[in-house]
Amino acid sequence: MDHRGRLRSLQHSLYVHKFDILLVTHLPNIRYLCGFTGSSGVLAVSERACVFFTDGRYTAQARAEVRGARVVIAQKSALIAAAEWIKSRAKGLRRIGIEGEHLTVSSRNLLAANLGSGPRLKEAPPLIEQARRVKDVDEVRHIREAVLLGASLFEVARQTIRPGVTEIEVAAEMEFAARRAGAEAMSFETIIAAGERSALPHGRASEAAIPVQGFVVCDFGVILAGYCSDMTRTLYVGRPDESARRMYEAVREAQQAGVEAVRPGVTVGELDQLVRKALKKSRLDKYFTHSTGHGVGLEIHEAPRIAAGQRETLLPGMVITIEPGVYVPGKWGVRIEDMVVVTKNGSEVLTPTSKELVAL
Amino acid sequence: MDHRGRLRSLQHSLYVHKFDILLVTHLPNIRYLCGFTGSSGVLAVSERACVFFTDGRYTAQARAEVRGARVVIAQKSALIAAAEWIKSRAKGLRRIGIEGEHLTVSSRNLLAANLGSGPRLKEAPPLIEQARRVKDVDEVRHIREAVLLGASLFEVARQTIRPGVTEIEVAAEMEFAARRAGAEAMSFETIIAAGERSALPHGRASEAAIPVQGFVVCDFGVILAGYCSDMTRTLYVGRPDESARRMYEAVREAQQAGVEAVRPGVTVGELDQLVRKALKKSRLDKYFTHSTGHGVGLEIHEAPRIAAGQRETLLPGMVITIEPGVYVPGKWGVRIEDMVVVTKNGSEVLTPTSKELVAL
Repeated sequence: MDHRGRLRSLQHSLYVHKFDILLVTHLPNIRYLCGFTGSSGVLAVSERACVFFTDGRYTAQARAEVRGARVVIAQKSALIAAAEWIKSRAKGLRRIGIEGEHLTVSSRNLLAANLGSGPRLKEAPPLIEQARRVKDVDEVRHIREAVLLGASLFEVARQTIRPGVTEIEVAAEMEFAARRAGAEAMSFETIIAAGERSALPHGRASEAAIPVQGFVVCDFGVILAGYCSDMTRTLYVGRPDESARRMYEAVREAQQAGVEAVRPGVTVGELDQLVRKALKKSRLDKYFTHSTGHGVGLEIHEAPRIAAGQRETLLPGMVITIEPGVYVPGKWGVRIEDMVVVTKNGSEVLTPTSKELVAL
Repeated sequence: MDHRGRLRSLQHSLYVHKFDILLVTHLPNIRYLCGFTGSSGVLAVSERACVFFTDGRYTAQARAEVRGARVVIAQKSALIAAAEWIKSRAKGLRRIGIEGEHLTVSSRNLLAANLGSGPRLKEAPPLIEQARRVKDVDEVRHIREAVLLGASLFEVARQTIRPGVTEIEVAAEMEFAARRAGAEAMSFETIIAAGERSALPHGRASEAAIPVQGFVVCDFGVILAGYCSDMTRTLYVGRPDESARRMYEAVREAQQAGVEAVRPGVTVGELDQLVRKALKKSRLDKYFTHSTGHGVGLEIHEAPRIAAGQRETLLPGMVITIEPGVYVPGKWGVRIEDMVVVTKNGSEVLTPTSKELVAL
């Protein structure tokens, strides 16, 4: 990973946005910029210096991982050490950027109290999140590997799902396979939502048993070398009747329409609208109660959001999900989700798994 | 769980602290107060009303889970809906408490912008975290069950750990067993840190293989019915020599001294000091680079912190860890951790696992 290049590029945008220093506190941003994978630290970036503050628990890890920044082990908190470092610098440092989307009100106040009256804290725009939207070659390679490992778990689900088995047992088998294949963790709590529970868009695997008949929504992903995967397939246990088939096909067509529309220059709002429009044909759009997708990378949900009204334009190197779903409360639900990378001239679907309806 | 009682007690403390409304945004606090287990929502509590705001993804789940509060499904964001609700109320609502430790600077600003000029946002003291420190009978029961399930995983570790197996394979077997036994998730990323890696206090399981000789730190826990467990045992692979035994015994004695000192009225700072003092006898205190422990409940780390200088007093019903460790960089490390509940007259160790040195 080109940590030094990323830091240099951030330093340039600090100059453009007139920040003397940016205090990076969001851990995925810290990892992106300097490689640190621990769970506590602050990266201070000025036009000329990059200093990473962490505490004694991470001495060895910080020394081993951090690239492009000097490591300081704080006696107390990393945040206070960063504030003291800023105070000790030339008086000219006045505009200090903070990550308002991630820093808590208390941490902001602690910083302000330790900085004294000179420097002013300003909410910075999401500069690093914006940079992270477009993945470089190394990142796409990592994501591709995570997606392939993730997809292999669907085979485990297919082999495990049968009436009477609990949702959590299905998740357990998938997660075990993921770990054995080297996944650091699942990228979110595995969703196995069977029967009526398939109507819950966020139906984490529960103690409920797979019924003899009905949809099973499987939404899952892994973290491999820091990068996330995310996919959803919906199976049918038993013999799907005509209405189940129609509902499934409507979602599949809408999802496919979305996937095919991914190319540089399309706005994410247009993409969302197009998927909703496809569902409208079967009058299912009112049951599609969430957004169409999201970026994926070091975080499972990152920019851009593929949602109504968003004006952001797709760029080559963005990696996003397309995941329409329809949920009829108390009855059933279907969701289908792929990960797609935007290429120079169009897109490539990363998820290798068939979207034909599987009946078990 | 007595959600209504908890809400009533919070309403009383709002009165004492002169808040017209408290906006609860921290998810474990929301769960504690009204039972909602989803991942997005805002609970507004005034002296007379409790209203829970969430979005369309959680319609069914909120209706099924929430107790003691009215459920409102927000069209846009739950936070904006909460702000609009406050605005629509009597003009007298001026002092609005926020959870500064959890609310981001951006969310605070979004709230302020949507509230207009009347109400003022004030950082509230951690009222709910303080209430959560002392567990009720139902909570202790859930924690006890989580601890027992967690402890059963150490047997899996013992059976899996042998030279050549990777740390991540050990973690995979443990996590699989946890899931099959009904755990919702692990309570944090499983730490299996073998050989030199045992000197990393936060050595998450890696692709490194267990060496033929050396310590293996195993720190892990599960979430069961929302409640966390946390324990650490350190094994030795091969035949421990005299210096390994001495180091292990020093940590064990310090940990035991800590456990035995747990009783109502002791301050957490005294407890921390006592454990450090015990390690000082073997001159290992300088290698003990983290705090002695923490509260455990709906979160893996919650109040109280068992750390130097903290003045909080132990109360019956608190559930804490005692987990000294010594880490000799580049060489080895040992940590031993139990969960302990403070009782009326003393304490009870919840973790049932022996602390004798296990050599595999």
